[in-house]
Amino acid sequence: YEYQAEELTYFRGLEAVTLDGHRVVLRSNIEIAEEVPIALREGAQGVGLFRTEFLYMKRNHVPSEEEQLSAYRQIIESMAPHPVTIRTLDVGGDKLVSGIDLSDEANPAMGLRAIRFSLKEKNLFKVQLRAILRASAFGNARILFPMITGVAEIKSCKCLLQEIRQELVAEGHAFDPDIEIGIMIETPAAALVTELLAREVDFLSVGTNDLIQYCLAVDRGNEHVAYLFEPLHPAILRTLRMICDAAKQAGVMVGICGEMAGDPLYALVLLGLGFDEWSMNAPYISQVKRIIRQVHRPEAERLVEELFELGSAPEAARRLAGEMNKRF
Amino acid sequence: YEYQAEELTYFRGLEAVTLDGHRVVLRSNIEIAEEVPIALREGAQGVGLFRTEFLYMKRNHVPSEEEQLSAYRQIIESMAPHPVTIRTLDVGGDKLVSGIDLSDEANPAMGLRAIRFSLKEKNLFKVQLRAILRASAFGNARILFPMITGVAEIKSCKCLLQEIRQELVAEGHAFDPDIEIGIMIETPAAALVTELLAREVDFLSVGTNDLIQYCLAVDRGNEHVAYLFEPLHPAILRTLRMICDAAKQAGVMVGICGEMAGDPLYALVLLGLGFDEWSMNAPYISQVKRIIRQVHRPEAERLVEELFELGSAPEAARRLAGEMNKRF
Ligand SMILES: [Mg+2]
Ligand SMILES: [Mg+2]
Repeated sequence: YEYQAEELTYFRGLEAVTLDGHRVVLRSNIEIAEEVPIALREGAQGVGLFRTEFLYMKRNHVPSEEEQLSAYRQIIESMAPHPVTIRTLDVGGDKLVSGIDLSDEANPAMGLRAIRFSLKEKNLFKVQLRAILRASAFGNARILFPMITGVAEIKSCKCLLQEIRQELVAEGHAFDPDIEIGIMIETPAAALVTELLAREVDFLSVGTNDLIQYCLAVDRGNEHVAYLFEPLHPAILRTLRMICDAAKQAGVMVGICGEMAGDPLYALVLLGLGFDEWSMNAPYISQVKRIIRQVHRPEAERLVEELFELGSAPEAARRLAGEMNKRF
Repeated sequence: YEYQAEELTYFRGLEAVTLDGHRVVLRSNIEIAEEVPIALREGAQGVGLFRTEFLYMKRNHVPSEEEQLSAYRQIIESMAPHPVTIRTLDVGGDKLVSGIDLSDEANPAMGLRAIRFSLKEKNLFKVQLRAILRASAFGNARILFPMITGVAEIKSCKCLLQEIRQELVAEGHAFDPDIEIGIMIETPAAALVTELLAREVDFLSVGTNDLIQYCLAVDRGNEHVAYLFEPLHPAILRTLRMICDAAKQAGVMVGICGEMAGDPLYALVLLGLGFDEWSMNAPYISQVKRIIRQVHRPEAERLVEELFELGSAPEAARRLAGEMNKRF
């Protein structure tokens, strides 16, 4: 079911629609502006995940509001009218110029990172949010907050945004007053209370890499335990279903931007679970689209039901691989 | 609701039974044999968690089968006929004499620790299991496997136990052929598939410290994020309820041995959720028993329902503290 790139150019201009007419939105993950032309060429309907860490890490100083504004604006303008989903800083302070020394964290993946770091270093966070809001005047921007575990964090972010909106109005800066706000669902806690979080935001984006890591308590970068990192573990399938069901009930769009989204092996599973927006590295878009265009959605839903009946990841993996090899 | 120790001696000889006759079992967590007399004095109905790490760490060599046998036997004999729940090694190899160098793990809490380490270092694991099985001949022992995330790990453990049973029979060593086998539920994955895991074992024991840590992606030893470690986070309450409900449906005993069990603040919550066995440091047993003996179980169940209606940990904490201060 994996095709060579040259055979896939055919799919670039086509929609991601199933045989029975169910549409999904395929977007691109990007880190730098140079990836935008590739994303457009591959037919990405916008950017589902713009990782902003690169902006902070390639320099030895924190990027100024003007520097960030210019980077965001360039990407937003190139992608318009499609949305660009800008994720706020998603690292720990150890990787940045910052007053907080985090080098002593025993388990940095469960430490002061992402939204936790931003909410602690509010001045730094405000510079980024001001830049994003100002850039939103130039096209279709969305804000995405990483590593949310509870409603309180979302409220803090929205409160800060409101403060900034007032500042910008006072200063005479333009911005999109209706900019959409979303959160990553990438901790088990967030998955378990999706419906409480969904009430506070416009969209959700599931980060499967971290979600799987925390759910299974397996550092995905650790070779000793890599064998335990199983996307088809029944606990992971149940978690993904819980999230999708809660999002549907709340009437909120639910996307996925982890590695599972760009792996054609999982395309039927994500279709069956009901993800609305899939964001992946641009070169995978055609691979995934090709699969989506060749199935009826109820078939994917039935396959997911079958996987749920199986009690272990290896059984689910065998069943899925069998199906994919048979069909594609 | 916290009493001085001298006021609580009254409760030592009494049962942990609610006003409407619902019994729970209160056991002690121990690390060394010297704690057994304290546990007995405080009225512990056995040991719910015997942490064996101390045996390994106080020496500069791995303890031999005979050394372990003698340590386990002493505790089992002192506690008989009450059970002693021996948890197999629950550390990473970095803390031990071992051939595997784990000093490079970026996030050791999500690395090669506990059952993962034991299943990799099978010779070391076999020595411990042989010692536990041989000690089981001298009273009432139970085996508890830490950090289980899936059925495959339990099967590997049971397979090894079966091998050892045959060896012991061949060697003429006595052991309890019906020794109970249990697992820790302390990863979100295990909580999400409790009913699949329950089929494989005789009892479950929830480790709230790790469960909360992984669920919220918060290292509980990290001061920068300690404010996020909330036992009453709605995601944690839901997780605990999922586990209890799945255990009841499977007809398997479910215990709790994390810090929540020994904190009188949470006694009504754990009673309402339906935990059968609570294991805690011995000095807390009377505190907790005093609360259990003064309530009707349906009141605790109603309180838990109320906490479920609240959308955040601070609201739940206020409601619970209000109830506890009013009643006790
Ligand atoms: Mg992430
Ligand atoms: Mg633990």
